[in-house]
Amino acid sequence: MMSFNDWLAKSTDEVNDVIMGFLPAEEGYQKTVLSAMNYSVRAGGKRLRPLFMREIYRMFGGMGREVEPFMAAIEMIHTFSLIHDDLPCMDNDEYRRGMPTTWKAYGYDMAVLAGDALVVYAFETAAKAFAMAESDACRAAVARCMGLLAEKTGIYGMIGGQTADVELTGRKLDEAQLDFIYRLKTGALLEAPMMIGAILAGADEEQVKTVEKMAACVGRAFQIQDDILDITSSQEVLGKPVLSDEKNHKTTYVSLYGMEQARRDVAGLSGEAVGMLKSLPGNHETVEGLIDMLITREK
Amino acid sequence: MMSFNDWLAKSTDEVNDVIMGFLPAEEGYQKTVLSAMNYSVRAGGKRLRPLFMREIYRMFGGMGREVEPFMAAIEMIHTFSLIHDDLPCMDNDEYRRGMPTTWKAYGYDMAVLAGDALVVYAFETAAKAFAMAESDACRAAVARCMGLLAEKTGIYGMIGGQTADVELTGRKLDEAQLDFIYRLKTGALLEAPMMIGAILAGADEEQVKTVEKMAACVGRAFQIQDDILDITSSQEVLGKPVLSDEKNHKTTYVSLYGMEQARRDVAGLSGEAVGMLKSLPGNHETVEGLIDMLITREK
Repeated sequence: MMSFNDWLAKSTDEVNDVIMGFLPAEEGYQKTVLSAMNYSVRAGGKRLRPLFMREIYRMFGGMGREVEPFMAAIEMIHTFSLIHDDLPCMDNDEYRRGMPTTWKAYGYDMAVLAGDALVVYAFETAAKAFAMAESDACRAAVARCMGLLAEKTGIYGMIGGQTADVELTGRKLDEAQLDFIYRLKTGALLEAPMMIGAILAGADEEQVKTVEKMAACVGRAFQIQDDILDITSSQEVLGKPVLSDEKNHKTTYVSLYGMEQARRDVAGLSGEAVGMLKSLPGNHETVEGLIDMLITREK
Repeated sequence: MMSFNDWLAKSTDEVNDVIMGFLPAEEGYQKTVLSAMNYSVRAGGKRLRPLFMREIYRMFGGMGREVEPFMAAIEMIHTFSLIHDDLPCMDNDEYRRGMPTTWKAYGYDMAVLAGDALVVYAFETAAKAFAMAESDACRAAVARCMGLLAEKTGIYGMIGGQTADVELTGRKLDEAQLDFIYRLKTGALLEAPMMIGAILAGADEEQVKTVEKMAACVGRAFQIQDDILDITSSQEVLGKPVLSDEKNHKTTYVSLYGMEQARRDVAGLSGEAVGMLKSLPGNHETVEGLIDMLITREK
């Protein structure tokens, strides 16, 4: 049997191929922005969101291709959020994963437009799933997923979290505020892909709700782990400066609850997520592996 | 019988009510951005796009309410584009319709986020039409319109036009370049609402194609009229500085073809659009009135 790491490498390649297949051609008068869009998506990362989507889709027995446009769409939305987060008027970051950020590489105006173009292209891409759906039930699921994707991306999802984060910057946050930001900024964009995988594969309402709760736990554990790594990791490993939260006087889970409890809660939340996972039908192995990876990761 | 102007005033109020009904509540930790979103939508304008959508929907016999989320969505997308166009890294405009632009009123970061939130909220809003559709055919039409909305908004539509405009700024444009920018930047966001009105009302393929061509003519006439007004109008009437194109060394239809031909082409394109309109079924009166209004407008 293949090791998890071999499976992960192979699966990440497959997911990458799916994403690349939906990227636009770099031609015409919009070439610069098309190239900025693709540069940012290709700069890549762990492809965690489409991986979770695909594995949960398969876990629930999904066998169609209508999940693929959504896999590409969720990665485009994630990338859009990074492009705009890095802008000078936001975090003013010049490097990400060791490469110049989009605005550094293509200019401020082009980065705003590339982000705009990418988020809209995500919905254009997701809409392609309608033509791939093979039954009325599947088309209805695609429709529901389009709405869900917008909801979890928008002002009551990721963008809402980012907004609260910007709005409260420089202030000391209380537990409710930090919880709100983590739930929306990180959680929503893990809930969306996992729920979409479940819905497209025909999971029932109760199961979709369990998947949403499980994803929320995973998102929270993921964000706390991020806070931990900002303190314990090194720039070489992380690919970005460490201790940035402290430098920016940012309230984090660690500054609020201490390192010990942070570590304990990452483990607790992951355990909770795996518990929920095991109440669901299908083969849990790969999804459990992805959750484990999130807590043992060092970058 | 009601005069066109009375009808227009009444209809604009009705359309405004529909749009306002879909705006988000200004509460929670995202309050500032929610308020920035609503400020920008309320700052309003002619509501031309939802008006065209509604009238074409009615012309083709549409009687449902599934058009309403799309009416609100198209206005949100139009507003999103204005918020980001006004940013310092783009046109750097401080006033629009006599009011501070979003970034002047709410800050640079909040304006980026308000635009992002608004464009995503447009898709979230449009997706609400699924629940209002009363037949499989209507749900399929809604699905198609979701994709069309993204396509006409994105990199092959409005954002593509804006991108080419930014990219080619400062250079003297040739006819093909100017045509490309006008077709995408202005045309696409008139084609979308008119086509959506037709599709939702059940127009056939041939008719939808005619509507698209008609909308393209209207968009072109609209943009040329804009160029004319930038020269012939006054700041008091227009609500923004005149002669801005000349000041910015911008190639316009007037600088390329001369004022006389510009005026002739506005009339010609409008005539062409009305000719296509008359080949379609239904009562054309209100759509024709809207087209006429566009060419006789002074702001």
